[in-house]
Order: sequence, then structure tokens, then C-alpha cells
Amino acid sequence: MSTVYVVGLGPGAEEQMTVRAQKVLEHCPVLIGYNVYIDLVKEQFPDKIFLSTPMRKEPERCRMAFEEAEKGQDVAMICSGDAGVYGMAGLIFEIGKEYPEIQMEVVPGITAASGGAAVLGAPLMHDFAVISLSDLLTPWETIEKRLHAAGMADFVICLYNPSSKKRADYLQKACDILLQYRDVGNICGYVKNIGREGETYQILSLKELRDTKVDMFTTVFIGNSRTMELNGRMVTPRGYKL
Amino acid sequence: MSTVYVVGLGPGAEEQMTVRAQKVLEHCPVLIGYNVYIDLVKEQFPDKIFLSTPMRKEPERCRMAFEEAEKGQDVAMICSGDAGVYGMAGLIFEIGKEYPEIQMEVVPGITAASGGAAVLGAPLMHDFAVISLSDLLTPWETIEKRLHAAGMADFVICLYNPSSKKRADYLQKACDILLQYRDVGNICGYVKNIGREGETYQILSLKELRDTKVDMFTTVFIGNSRTMELNGRMVTPRGYKL
Ligand SMILES: C[S@@+](CC[C@H](N)C(=O)[O-])C[C@H]1O[C@@H](n2cnc3c(N)ncnc32)[C@H](O)[C@@H]1O
Ligand SMILES: C[S@@+](CC[C@H](N)C(=O)[O-])C[C@H]1O[C@@H](n2cnc3c(N)ncnc32)[C@H](O)[C@@H]1O
Repeated sequence: MSTVYVVGLGPGAEEQMTVRAQKVLEHCPVLIGYNVYIDLVKEQFPDKIFLSTPMRKEPERCRMAFEEAEKGQDVAMICSGDAGVYGMAGLIFEIGKEYPEIQMEVVPGITAASGGAAVLGAPLMHDFAVISLSDLLTPWETIEKRLHAAGMADFVICLYNPSSKKRADYLQKACDILLQYRDVGNICGYVKNIGREGETYQILSLKELRDTKVDMFTTVFIGNSRTMELNGRMVTPRGYKL
Repeated sequence: MSTVYVVGLGPGAEEQMTVRAQKVLEHCPVLIGYNVYIDLVKEQFPDKIFLSTPMRKEPERCRMAFEEAEKGQDVAMICSGDAGVYGMAGLIFEIGKEYPEIQMEVVPGITAASGGAAVLGAPLMHDFAVISLSDLLTPWETIEKRLHAAGMADFVICLYNPSSKKRADYLQKACDILLQYRDVGNICGYVKNIGREGETYQILSLKELRDTKVDMFTTVFIGNSRTMELNGRMVTPRGYKL
């Protein structure tokens, strides 16, 4: 019986991959993924069959994985970060129903929230909410409702998909919602290209974040009311007495 | 200049560690951590100086790390899961202020949310909130406020520290809050000993979860209104048309 593994590469692949993820990629003859992620692993695993489909063809990409597995070989569907956080794990299980003879296994990876937090310092030391600003698959009203709830209850907030060509002002809209609950000086941060070439980060106030443009390779962090900047790091105290 | 690395081991250490975490542990002569985590790595890295303090002595443990680093050697402070999620990263930066000559770096790991999700299937495929039920460092009112907000805005919810001897009924209290917003049949799951000996999991309804006892080595997942059980897996759809 063949297996489709859904493998998270971590934010930058290579050293940020788990040992288990590396072993699974070594083991599988076929690696499938979005082009950008295939490029991240091609050099490290040159002797593989690489398959991919363009973005927005996710269901087709999953079917391709199961069809390769039906030929009797194990297949790795690769995702950036964690396969289970806005990745392909869910769709693999949904489509896997059509292929009852193929096994499925998720191999987790470091998600952008953890990877980006480590670059900034320690912003996620207290309760946090992870929200995607992409309204491709989610109504904007649902996203707004979640921003209000997270703002109100003083969660640290981590935003994925903060921008795209069509949604250039979504981060601004999100900040405007959060400014209803948080101080203009609320400490925020963002990290671009976590673990990849061109990694950069910035720590700034919520007011400044509102007027900042970020791209889709960026993860944004909004601290809670107690988050501070400490020698150039973004740190949310857990509450220990020092 | 010496460095204190704060290293996340992933939920079960070994194969779930990143390549980077392994290299850092190989590199550092001194490994410091809570006993349970030291035991997880002792076999893999036998030739180290191991130091530890009991639980609840976290500030002392951090000072110990900086004092070892002041002797001119690199030190790894090890945490389970991700060092930046209810781990030691924040405290290291807070106490690090007292040791300006020592550098600090966070090496992220797979947090229990990602590791547990992979065991259950794909519960975290949509916006989610991570909440600790421990009121050692956080007033219970704050925890309740966050449960209400996350319940109301239909977040998938991941609960850390769901129980302890003194807090045997906290999970029940949390479920009672969530039942104000969610159906009794809302799909939930929990995983005990993720990536360790004795790993077990269960998928169940919110009503059933309310009447379940879990221990402190367990992470609990409460699906959103669209989360389903699919051939024994807990899956939250991202919203793709199949
Ligand atoms: C479709 S989601 C995939 C998330 C991925 N599965 C994970 O767990 O990190 C894409 C979004 O994740 C974030 N992201 C993923 N990799 C990143 C990286 N290397 N640097 C910065 N942000 C990243 C960005 O917010 C991006 O818009
Ligand atoms: C103090 S927190 C540490 C969290 C850790 N830094 C992380 O990122 O996973 C301890 C809680 O994390 C969760 N946890 C950590 N490791 C786990 C494991 N191997 N299996 C199940 N739950 C775990 C449990 O909810 C536990 O009560």
C-alpha cells in the first residue's frame, strides 16, 4: 500500500526542516508541490521526480499525488512551513476519500508563526491567534469578526497572507480594526523571507504598521497590550516575577 | 562573545527536532533545562554538561544559563516544542538585559499545536487561537475572556496546559464557555504524549470532551463549526471547491 506524505519544509527548508521531514523526502521517489517550494528542495534532493501545478490548482495537485501513489510508489506533497497550517494537509484528507487504498500521513514543520517569532525575539509567549488575511476562500466579514475578537480579548495576533496585488490595503484595514481596541503604540513586528535569502524584519508601532506596505512573503505580528521592545527584540512577557 | 541559544526540541525530540536544533545542541558544551527535557536528549548527546532546576524555578534556570555563558562557553537552554510558545525564549530576553555581553538566539521547534494536529489529521487548516489554561501566571478572568472571544468568532482552538492536579475541572469550565457558542456535536480532539512513548489520541464531540479528564501532557483541539471527522481524522476544511 502506498502513502502520500504531506510534508512541511519549515519556512526556509534545509536546516529548518525536521530530521523526520528530511528522511521522508529521501525515501519518496516523487515530490510534488508548488514551484517555489520544489525549487527550495531541488538542490538538496536532485534524484527525484518533481511534479508541480501552478498556484490556485490545489485540488488538481492533490489528485496528481494520489495518482502517482496509485502506481505503487510513495509520494511527498511538500508545503512551506507546516503542512497543517494553511497548507495542503486538509485537502489531502478531503480528496483522499476518493482513494481509499492510499495511506496518508502528515509530517509537521515549523510554521511561519514560530519561525518569524524566533527572528523577532519572543512575541508568542502568551495566548495568540493566527489569522489569514486572504479572502480567496474566506468571506472578508469572517476575517473581520476574528480580528475584532482577537483585538478585544488582547491576544497576540499573527497574520498570514497579509497582502497581495488585489488586496494591497487589507493590512491597513486590519490595523484599523485593531486600533479600536489597542493603543497606537502597541508593539508590532513583521518578518519577510523567514529563513530564506533576503530575510529582513522590523519592529514598529501599530500606528506605523498601519501605514506600512508588506508583501505576501511576510508574516506580521501584533503584540498584546504587554508586549515590549527590549534591546531591539519583540518580547511578550509570560508573567514571571524576575 | 558567548551565546545562549534557546532551543525548541519539538514535541518528542529526536526525529522531530530540526536539523538546526541538532547542530546547535552538538555545538554547545552545556545543556540546561527542566529534567524531563534533559532526559529526552541525554542519550542522543551523552558528552555534555547537563544542568537543570526543578519546575517553577524558571528565572533561576535562565540566570544559570547566563552564568555558564559568562565562563566563555556557548549554552543551550532546551524547551519542549517551540522555545517561543509558552517556553523560555521570553524570559531569556527579559533576564538577558542583566547580561549585556552575552548574545541570545532562538532556535524554533515544532510546537505541540503543529505536532498534535499532524497526529489528528488537519484541524488547524483555518484561523486558530492558542490558549493556555494554566492560571499560574495569568488571571483566570483573562483566560475566560479569550475563550469567549475565540468561541464567538469561530476560531479553531488549541488548548495547552489543559489540566493539573489543582486545576482538574478547568477543561470542563472551558468547554462550558465554548458550549455557549458551539454545537454539542462540535468536533474536538486531543493528543497525549505527542511524538513520545505512549502517544494516544481521541476524536470526540465537544459534549464528550467536557466530560473527559486529560492530563498535563495533553494538547486539546476544538474544531470550528465546519470541522469534520473524516475516516477517523479531524479535518477543518480550508474552503477549496473539490
Ligand atoms: C498559504 S500560507 C502557507 C503557510 C505555511 N503552511 C506555514 O505554516 O508557514 C502563506 C503565508 O505564510 C507566511 N509565510 C510562509 N512562509 C514564509 C516565510 N518563509 N517568510 C515569511 N512568511 C512566510 C506568509 O504570511 C505567507 O503569505
Ligand atoms: C509549558 S507548555 C510548553 C509548550 C511547548 N513550548 C510547545 O511549544 O509545545 C506545556 C504544554 O504544552 C503541551 N505539550 C507540550 N509537549 C507536548 C507533548 N509532547 N504532547 C502533548 N502535549 C504537549 C501540553 O498541553 C502541555 O501542558
